Amino acid sequence: MEGRNRVIIEAVSPQIDCGRYPVKRIAGEELVVQADIFCDGHDEISARLLYRQQGLVDWEQLPMQRLGNDRWQGSFSLTFAGLYQYTVTAWVDHFRSWQKDLLKKHQAGQNIEIELLIGIAYIEKGAKSSTGEESDRLQAISASLMKTRDLPKKVLLVSDPEIAFLLNAVSSSSLATTYHQELKVIVERQKALFSSWYELFPRSCAPEPGRHGTLKDCCGLLPEIAEMGFDVLYLPPIHPIGTSKRKGKSNSTQAKPGDPGSPWAIGNAEGGHKAVHPGLGTIDDLQVLIQEAKSYGVEVALDLAFQCSPDHPYLTQHPEWFLWRPDGSVQFAENPPKKYEDIIPLNFETDHWQELWDELKSVVFFWMDIGIRIFRVDNPHTKPFRFWEWLIQEAKQKSPDVLFLAEAFTRPKVMHELAKLGFSQSYTYFAWRSSKEELTSYLNELTHIEVREVMRPNFWPNTPDILPEHLQYGGRAAFVIRLVLAATLSSNYGIYGPAYELCVSEAVAGTEEYLNAEKYELKQWDRDQPGNLKTVIAAINRIRRENAALKETSNLKFYQSDNDSILFYGKSSPEQDNIILVAVCLDPFHTQAGRIRIPIADFGIEPDRPYLVHDLLNNEKLIWQGEWNRIKLDPEKLPARIFRIRAKLRREVDFEYYL
Amino acid sequence: MEGRNRVIIEAVSPQIDCGRYPVKRIAGEELVVQADIFCDGHDEISARLLYRQQGLVDWEQLPMQRLGNDRWQGSFSLTFAGLYQYTVTAWVDHFRSWQKDLLKKHQAGQNIEIELLIGIAYIEKGAKSSTGEESDRLQAISASLMKTRDLPKKVLLVSDPEIAFLLNAVSSSSLATTYHQELKVIVERQKALFSSWYELFPRSCAPEPGRHGTLKDCCGLLPEIAEMGFDVLYLPPIHPIGTSKRKGKSNSTQAKPGDPGSPWAIGNAEGGHKAVHPGLGTIDDLQVLIQEAKSYGVEVALDLAFQCSPDHPYLTQHPEWFLWRPDGSVQFAENPPKKYEDIIPLNFETDHWQELWDELKSVVFFWMDIGIRIFRVDNPHTKPFRFWEWLIQEAKQKSPDVLFLAEAFTRPKVMHELAKLGFSQSYTYFAWRSSKEELTSYLNELTHIEVREVMRPNFWPNTPDILPEHLQYGGRAAFVIRLVLAATLSSNYGIYGPAYELCVSEAVAGTEEYLNAEKYELKQWDRDQPGNLKTVIAAINRIRRENAALKETSNLKFYQSDNDSILFYGKSSPEQDNIILVAVCLDPFHTQAGRIRIPIADFGIEPDRPYLVHDLLNNEKLIWQGEWNRIKLDPEKLPARIFRIRAKLRREVDFEYYL
Repeated sequence: MEGRNRVIIEAVSPQIDCGRYPVKRIAGEELVVQADIFCDGHDEISARLLYRQQGLVDWEQLPMQRLGNDRWQGSFSLTFAGLYQYTVTAWVDHFRSWQKDLLKKHQAGQNIEIELLIGIAYIEKGAKSSTGEESDRLQAISASLMKTRDLPKKVLLVSDPEIAFLLNAVSSSSLATTYHQELKVIVERQKALFSSWYELFPRSCAPEPGRHGTLKDCCGLLPEIAEMGFDVLYLPPIHPIGTSKRKGKSNSTQAKPGDPGSPWAIGNAEGGHKAVHPGLGTIDDLQVLIQEAKSYGVEVALDLAFQCSPDHPYLTQHPEWFLWRPDGSVQFAENPPKKYEDIIPLNFETDHWQELWDELKSVVFFWMDIGIRIFRVDNPHTKPFRFWEWLIQEAKQKSPDVLFLAEAFTRPKVMHELAKLGFSQSYTYFAWRSSKEELTSYLNELTHIEVREVMRPNFWPNTPDILPEHLQYGGRAAFVIRLVLAATLSSNYGIYGPAYELCVSEAVAGTEEYLNAEKYELKQWDRDQPGNLKTVIAAINRIRRENAALKETSNLKFYQSDNDSILFYGKSSPEQDNIILVAVCLDPFHTQAGRIRIPIADFGIEPDRPYLVHDLLNNEKLIWQGEWNRIKLDPEKLPARIFRIRAKLRREVDFEYYL
Repeated sequence: MEGRNRVIIEAVSPQIDCGRYPVKRIAGEELVVQADIFCDGHDEISARLLYRQQGLVDWEQLPMQRLGNDRWQGSFSLTFAGLYQYTVTAWVDHFRSWQKDLLKKHQAGQNIEIELLIGIAYIEKGAKSSTGEESDRLQAISASLMKTRDLPKKVLLVSDPEIAFLLNAVSSSSLATTYHQELKVIVERQKALFSSWYELFPRSCAPEPGRHGTLKDCCGLLPEIAEMGFDVLYLPPIHPIGTSKRKGKSNSTQAKPGDPGSPWAIGNAEGGHKAVHPGLGTIDDLQVLIQEAKSYGVEVALDLAFQCSPDHPYLTQHPEWFLWRPDGSVQFAENPPKKYEDIIPLNFETDHWQELWDELKSVVFFWMDIGIRIFRVDNPHTKPFRFWEWLIQEAKQKSPDVLFLAEAFTRPKVMHELAKLGFSQSYTYFAWRSSKEELTSYLNELTHIEVREVMRPNFWPNTPDILPEHLQYGGRAAFVIRLVLAATLSSNYGIYGPAYELCVSEAVAGTEEYLNAEKYELKQWDRDQPGNLKTVIAAINRIRRENAALKETSNLKFYQSDNDSILFYGKSSPEQDNIILVAVCLDPFHTQAGRIRIPIADFGIEPDRPYLVHDLLNNEKLIWQGEWNRIKLDPEKLPARIFRIRAKLRREVDFEYYL
């Protein structure tokens, strides 16, 4: 034990669960690190931020600055996707303490002869301990100090910060305190933070009626998907579908001949998680789709549903991975009294769990080798957390640009845990938050410091399983409202189409399930049906792409509106060179008017000067003045306005107001 | 690695700095421990709180209960002073999960034949793994299950919680998750939380004018000190005082013959930190004082000032413990441009730091062996934090009832650190907080969860070094005001007397220093001088002793008053069987009147019913009704009221209102 480390380092941030989990960032960002750093007495402290990419031995070092109240700050650049480590080291800087005290004594007119001798001794000791240029420089300083007779000159000479810098390089190591933990930040590519998802069932993509759609057919839809502005095309499981206990139309327990079954009942004699449903095509077809999509700026995402149909090859090849009942039958999925007999869960408590983990990893690696870099994970909360943590780490080690979206709609702490352990994005409760109060409090929760460090929300107004009540009754306006909310509140969002853009709203009575759900049957969609939302979707996605403010979620701020049916909020880019304000009418039935409060002081706009707001969605320009301004939103036309506004950052460029 | 621990345990509380430091409690209290506990899927969890006294190998176990939102709670009794460890363990309880599902299936009318076989298999496996009574009982249950033909009877039989209890004893160990840290709680005796300090200079205690007072003279003051109600008598350093560079009267750098010097300039040829100043008496005299004080319910506290006069024996015996300057002189204490030439600091960065630490420990042990169990530590923030942490741990290992009060008036994080590392009590900024806003915000800071878990404030309205401005100008009323505030806001408080009870208010102009400070000269006090505060001090200390609500600090709540010169607050015992409300006039010059808001709803008092408040300080009883009631406080008479009020906990005992 060394009892002379006098510096205390505590409360290093960002930090999640005492460093157990990494915080999340995007390549190209800076990581701002803060810490409480102090020592006994009145001595000066020097502090360094240490960081390195995982796997490297040597730390990079950057000086930290004092912020006040014993808080210090430093930051470093996150250049590459992957894991970085960081920590903090600090030490009592005797030479700088001496410099500070010397000046004070000198200014007070005290005799500093002996003090100067002490300083020269520091410098000479430093010269001896160092080598090369540093040593030469220190020796030179010491020599000129000895030569100089003039006291003010001497004081000036020893006050040079360069000496402290040179001596620090020598002395920093000996009695430094290093924070007791190495913290971690996982850096992902920008798509982890900014993405626009489009989900479709490939088997419903055939242009001719009645035919089973194929991956090739999907290629034909790429121009349309790209024109709407989506950049992720997410396909539900594309694997062979079980025949035993297959579900019929509308989730019936009796499939009729020709019923295609649920894609989530994975596996039959034709293959399991590494096979493509022959009706959809081949692995080669998938590779073609991936390539063609890429040319449109669209990335293909696959579903990862770690469960089996009763016909999955695993059941015979690896019976030890399943739970068997005393009557010799295999345990199917259930949540009593509900039964899901077409789904056989894997038993993660098997004695052979290591082989099982390895096999599931090989599934992920298989599709990564085909070219997939985004996985939407089905029901991750029904498999062990430690399994996902390991799997995601393994996949990211293979390729740090792989992303995982957690499809968990369960208790808050379980969803938060999945985010912490490594999922890049998370489904949320957005589908069930519709009033001003619900949206405000939920978004405040998601953007709270503890949550936003690890959890990136992905907002879905609908999914094949969720047709929320407000979409069932609110008509086309409700679809536009929920689209604008999803796409501007969250930088990641997605829709299940074409049910969404065609405003499909019929549900099984008293439920949130789609009537004649696509999960259980082939669909033939008229994608150009009148009233479709393609134009407004394209506009919103274009606005998202063109405005940096909308490429983040945690920059969200809610602003006042005096009408509870008008939600008003905004986002700014870090440099405030892009500011977006959004007003949404939450009532799909009536025109709502009211006043909204523009936080002009935040933007440097004076209350007595007019300013221009540009409604990007309606392409309309307005001149406003002061904080409170009137707004009227007609859900029949467009129930939202998306304003761009210019901050008045520099007084001399007034003309910039008028963009 | 075991990949099958499905339970996650996080956010265990209380917890300070990821378990780096213990939280603080008092012997006799319960420690309530909470944790986030959850697993994947829908299975049932069993959780246990583990705890033990430090040094014991085996954990005690108590079941934890689910609170909702995946939060669990348990608690255990802190019987003895000393260190306890605690942590949490939890596991998926397969049998209880099975019980729950079985009931649901049975209620839904499903066939449960096979389910019952699964359950019997659990029970039989449990019977085999256990021994003695448990095994017999499980075998008996299994046997009667096999015999029973009646299905409802079978279901009833297997639903018995006893089976889950018996099986848990067998199965809990295998795949349990145990929280990754053992957390600590340091338990101290009640005086750490509730104490009333009286500081005096023994050398000023002689009844005859001009004579140097002695420890024997102090014995003569014990009846008076006890009658005022104090339970700690704190003596500034009682050691020999240096003669070189001795300070004269009023902190003059030139001592005149006969000037006694500052007691904090410790050591001369007659001895150092283990000696008693011959003018004060002997070690035996101290032991007599300790014993006599004890008979009055008063405990003697000594000062621990780890610094030396230039004449301290350490300087010659251990020159390696000091910093020497190039001219051969020893480095004295300074905070440039200020110099403290009568004080030589120890150099904790010496290569011989281990010998130094050991010597200082032997000083503490020396006085502990004499019978001292409370130390007031002088300027702990100018010695290394790690030293104090070690020293306090060593002292508490020798005797867990030893207490340390940190005299640090420095930056908040430094003071907080001293509390975290082990000081039982802390001086605070109370002396400089006087307005309603200052007191409210400072007390809210001190009673905030993060602070109150480790820091126990000790409020001093004055010290030999601090005569705050409001006492200089506010007259006797100001002294009463500050006394009531200190004694009722904080459960630990103290005064420097008799300067306090005699309302000594003359300061060195423009400073907070006493004119003709007692630190530098002998004083002759007329302790019975008219206008002294002895009666009101005795009353306040009696109220403190008789009301459990005032024996804690973190139970403080501020309540509304409509006059900024009236501070209104209250404290309740945990069971609400003792409620104290305090109204203090912060203005020492004028009578203040206003309305205060009694939080009657918190106390179960109905708005339309009168209730009795008993002013314990003025011994007056009032009948009030509703929330807002008028109050008038005349600083010339008594600038405060200390009310006791009864909560109406049970409707049937209405008469209890009238105490």
